Amino acid sequence: MTFDHGVLFFLVEMVGTVAFALSGAMLAIQRGLDLFGVVFLGVATAIGGGILRDLLLGQVPPQAFLNSVYFLASAAASLLVFAAALLNRRRGRTDLPVNSALLNVFDAAGLGIFSVIGVQHTVAAGFGENLFFCVFLGMTTGVGGGMLRDVLSHSTPAVLRKHVYALASLAGAVCYYLLQDLFPAASIAVSVLLVIVLRVLASRYRWTLPRIQPPDA
Amino acid sequence: MTFDHGVLFFLVEMVGTVAFALSGAMLAIQRGLDLFGVVFLGVATAIGGGILRDLLLGQVPPQAFLNSVYFLASAAASLLVFAAALLNRRRGRTDLPVNSALLNVFDAAGLGIFSVIGVQHTVAAGFGENLFFCVFLGMTTGVGGGMLRDVLSHSTPAVLRKHVYALASLAGAVCYYLLQDLFPAASIAVSVLLVIVLRVLASRYRWTLPRIQPPDA
Amino acid sequence: MTFDHGVLFFLVEMVGTVAFALSGAMLAIQRGLDLFGVVFLGVATAIGGGILRDLLLGQVPPQAFLNSVYFLASAAASLLVFAAALLNRRRGRTDLPVNSALLNVFDAAGLGIFSVIGVQHTVAAGFGENLFFCVFLGMTTGVGGGMLRDVLSHSTPAVLRKHVYALASLAGAVCYYLLQDLFPAASIAVSVLLVIVLRVLASRYRWTLPRIQPPDA
Repeated sequence: MTFDHGVLFFLVEMVGTVAFALSGAMLAIQRGLDLFGVVFLGVATAIGGGILRDLLLGQVPPQAFLNSVYFLASAAASLLVFAAALLNRRRGRTDLPVNSALLNVFDAAGLGIFSVIGVQHTVAAGFGENLFFCVFLGMTTGVGGGMLRDVLSHSTPAVLRKHVYALASLAGAVCYYLLQDLFPAASIAVSVLLVIVLRVLASRYRWTLPRIQPPDA
Repeated sequence: MTFDHGVLFFLVEMVGTVAFALSGAMLAIQRGLDLFGVVFLGVATAIGGGILRDLLLGQVPPQAFLNSVYFLASAAASLLVFAAALLNRRRGRTDLPVNSALLNVFDAAGLGIFSVIGVQHTVAAGFGENLFFCVFLGMTTGVGGGMLRDVLSHSTPAVLRKHVYALASLAGAVCYYLLQDLFPAASIAVSVLLVIVLRVLASRYRWTLPRIQPPDA
Repeated sequence: MTFDHGVLFFLVEMVGTVAFALSGAMLAIQRGLDLFGVVFLGVATAIGGGILRDLLLGQVPPQAFLNSVYFLASAAASLLVFAAALLNRRRGRTDLPVNSALLNVFDAAGLGIFSVIGVQHTVAAGFGENLFFCVFLGMTTGVGGGMLRDVLSHSTPAVLRKHVYALASLAGAVCYYLLQDLFPAASIAVSVLLVIVLRVLASRYRWTLPRIQPPDA
């Protein structure tokens, strides 16, 4: 089977971009931001992690500025969420268009995809020997957009608040790093699935790592 | 009429720098920060947007570090605000030296000027063909210093809190991008004025874009 | 006496790295974060200032990613703090393993060391003529990790909250800049000590610079 790797990568990246834009736009709606704020936060969540990664790799201007498809996809997804929420409201329903369980899966998908893409970019930039740097930038790409979203919306960063969040990203990045040469195509799917499963289970069963004091003490 | 463009640009940039330094210093005084905090926040607000722009353009070290005039102008403006506030207080007056309506105009002027300058730098760096990148960096330069000010002072970022804030910056950046070749000098004035008028009207008449839920819900 | 400068620098840098990791890990424990959060915040505090400095100098990827010793040292220090706190708790003691006075000295040591190292890196990058840039990056390296720690943990940044914090860093950076050529080795010790003494005295005697309004007004 001939198989265009570039197209697969691009499609996967678009899924992650849209998933993160949805998570940013939904938070913005919950926070009572207006239409512009919803699009702003959706776009920032979707492209923030990649911009941080490109800055740390020294690849400037960052990819997200040179190819407007990332911006257009995340802005369109944010607008769609806003329109759906407005429609819901006009029909007298007070719930949001994406329920929180579904949103959590979207967010986990974005986390997994961006963690893998972060490793890919770091390897492609010539740092494939440096496991530590590859995995670190994988995690940065995965959690960076959400960090930007939370800092901008003045929330406690999800990376410190949610169960096994950065750790799931880390696991996916390590998994992809180890499998990339053995199973080029399957390694993406396996690593992304690993992150999604870890995050959804952690969230569902409230997995906790040991801690000394209760949160917010 | 012979006309030195460089001098005009520089003067306009100084006005924007001082305007943003005033807005940062005033917020610091309201927050009860000490003399150093007032200068720190004034300088960060004035040079933060340009530093972010230069990092994203790959122009390092950022301009603000290589030419200390930006630092000196913003530090001097911050000190002046502090001295005026101290004098007011000693005379038994409890109001701040710059009233909030005036401060809003200063901030709008800084927003307009930095949005235009951001487009100029991006064009000068060779990305003039890329409307999207030019406008995005215009907005980043415009709202970046205020974002840094708000994150550092632990406030909800103005970009999401104020009426039509980033959107005014965006309008000014697009306006300048479209007019720059037709009316080189006038395009600056027109674009900056557009931002000021939009922001002052939006603030005065509490213009709102549609939103789903009330703010802070 | 022959004297390997590089080894001294490295040892001093490790002391600063561990000191900042301790301060980040302790804050994370107080905030009720779990094991991963403690390590995450410890590492971010320890390497954040240097990453910011390297980005502003255009030295990418930042040093902290190319040499994993900074990561390993700060992760190990964070784990140690966590283990000590867990042990304390199991013995029925509710206090933290490092008391706040000691933590303050650690943090002051990190502040002093990183301020000096920031100047050194800027001079080594060829900007030794530019007093302003050297001192600014010294301060950025000193306060940057703590700023990242506070923004990520959703606290008011120490740089604006603590008595004479950034100012102590500034004093150390200026002191080192002026003495570096006269007394290469002693200048490090003197500058770091200056920062520690300033910070500990400022904290002990609650030194305040003039301010207009009471804090948090």
